[in-house]
Amino acid sequence: MSTQTPRTAVVIGTGTIALGWIALFAARDLRVRVSSTRPDAPEYVAGAIPRYAATLPDGAVDPAALLDRITFVPEVRDAVGDADVVQENAPEDLPLKQKLFARVADAAPSGALLLSSTSTLLPDQLGAELAEPGRVVIGHPFNPPHIVPLVEVVGSPGSDPALVARAVDFYRGLGKSPVVLRRALPGFVANRLQAALLREAVHLVREGVVTVDELDTVVTSSIGQRWAVVGPFEAFHLGGGPGGLRHWFAHLGAGLERGWESLGRPPADEETVETILAQAERGFARHPYPELAARRDRRQNAVIAALRAEGRA
Amino acid sequence: MSTQTPRTAVVIGTGTIALGWIALFAARDLRVRVSSTRPDAPEYVAGAIPRYAATLPDGAVDPAALLDRITFVPEVRDAVGDADVVQENAPEDLPLKQKLFARVADAAPSGALLLSSTSTLLPDQLGAELAEPGRVVIGHPFNPPHIVPLVEVVGSPGSDPALVARAVDFYRGLGKSPVVLRRALPGFVANRLQAALLREAVHLVREGVVTVDELDTVVTSSIGQRWAVVGPFEAFHLGGGPGGLRHWFAHLGAGLERGWESLGRPPADEETVETILAQAERGFARHPYPELAARRDRRQNAVIAALRAEGRA
Repeated sequence: MSTQTPRTAVVIGTGTIALGWIALFAARDLRVRVSSTRPDAPEYVAGAIPRYAATLPDGAVDPAALLDRITFVPEVRDAVGDADVVQENAPEDLPLKQKLFARVADAAPSGALLLSSTSTLLPDQLGAELAEPGRVVIGHPFNPPHIVPLVEVVGSPGSDPALVARAVDFYRGLGKSPVVLRRALPGFVANRLQAALLREAVHLVREGVVTVDELDTVVTSSIGQRWAVVGPFEAFHLGGGPGGLRHWFAHLGAGLERGWESLGRPPADEETVETILAQAERGFARHPYPELAARRDRRQNAVIAALRAEGRA
Repeated sequence: MSTQTPRTAVVIGTGTIALGWIALFAARDLRVRVSSTRPDAPEYVAGAIPRYAATLPDGAVDPAALLDRITFVPEVRDAVGDADVVQENAPEDLPLKQKLFARVADAAPSGALLLSSTSTLLPDQLGAELAEPGRVVIGHPFNPPHIVPLVEVVGSPGSDPALVARAVDFYRGLGKSPVVLRRALPGFVANRLQAALLREAVHLVREGVVTVDELDTVVTSSIGQRWAVVGPFEAFHLGGGPGGLRHWFAHLGAGLERGWESLGRPPADEETVETILAQAERGFARHPYPELAARRDRRQNAVIAALRAEGRA
């Protein structure tokens, strides 16, 4: 393919993340080849695609039209033979993924983009068994990948910057918002930020300050909708008054570090988890899962559409 | 007033938060009495109100119509004489606020709601000089208060629950989303969650993983718009697949605590702050502050309108 627009994408796996990519790639007119160890992959994907087709960000599409572009080639060597892009979504098992990428690199065209959806492994680890380890680039989506714009893109120190740039072009061509990380670290960026917030959320529930449902309401009615619009740094810049971020830091000064030190350090032990689960089950989790998921996707797309109309994807 | 709908609200202060309350109260047909130590308070408020009138969540209103409902009574004892509600926004100086609330309680009708916008002080501290310390209830908004729905409401252990319920009714009547905290702790909930995320954001910028602008883009294109729609617990419930939050916790298990331990503990020293400011000044802060603020408010209201249309305020 070199720098041509990709035509054929191989998706490895049929989990939640893989299904999102399959639906999005097909909706963007790519030929999608699914490589899965599931013997019932064709039936399973056919059963799942309508849910994804109904919630594509540009509006619902006919699931049959998507399925027309999807074929199934279980053996990965056969699947990648004429691939322009390979998006890997295998289980988070390092030796498994290393062997998988070695096979993929061996059988795919030399110009094919080799991308991994991993959220926990690092690119140099994934490419360790390749002649050119730098060929593997992380393209880490945010769930569900057919809706949420972000893709975190990061190569290893040995990756050709042009390869990383091609990965960015590929995702941007799909309508995503790729962000290149300057180096990889476990959890990348979004999941580390999520973990930091979750830790304090668990602390506040554990301390009985708010319930699980109340905490969720606090977030959706304040920082959530704020951070849909401006990121945390710009938010504090605008919270600092006309003096901006400089005033904000000067005003908080030593209080910032003191505040950080006073954040909770809860255990994630069984008692804590059961407290949270019991509250969740009396709260949002009373509602059927597919109903909650459909509502989330509908609202998420409404927010995305509103932001697009205001000039922000 | 007892349980009547409030008609007259006193706003103490003319800072950013006070101005938001003044605009919102006036837009909701309250008579607003502003008590401020600024000698030029009438001119200052008149100059600021058009910006707020233009960004009210239900649509722009005529600033003159708001100003018609606003009067200025510098001396707080005079201002609160027939108040149904007092919303205090004085500087975060405990002795100052304690003396202020003692004067307010002395001069206001016994049924008036005495509310504080403080983000750092606790309700029992604020009421310490009152005959009934429990009369002071925190009504902590999120900036800017005329737009962002959340109000964190919390009394002290000695507060009559009926009083807290009246505060909730008052804010709900304004179209806000009040959440009652079961107990007060420094920073309440939203600001503690913000601090936790900011700490990791500072770490990631300091470590050179992303720039300030890139970090903001990661947030707005993923967790921000997700948390506008579902809170963190519901988000992980839906990220856990059909097994929900229970599966999510079981799947992560010990990894959750390990992930928390690996979060950054950056200093907030001068070097760190200057790194962030330099990047911000090359990034979003190149744009004029009023332009950024107006864009934020426009997009924020678009998100709120989209969520309302989907059945979520």
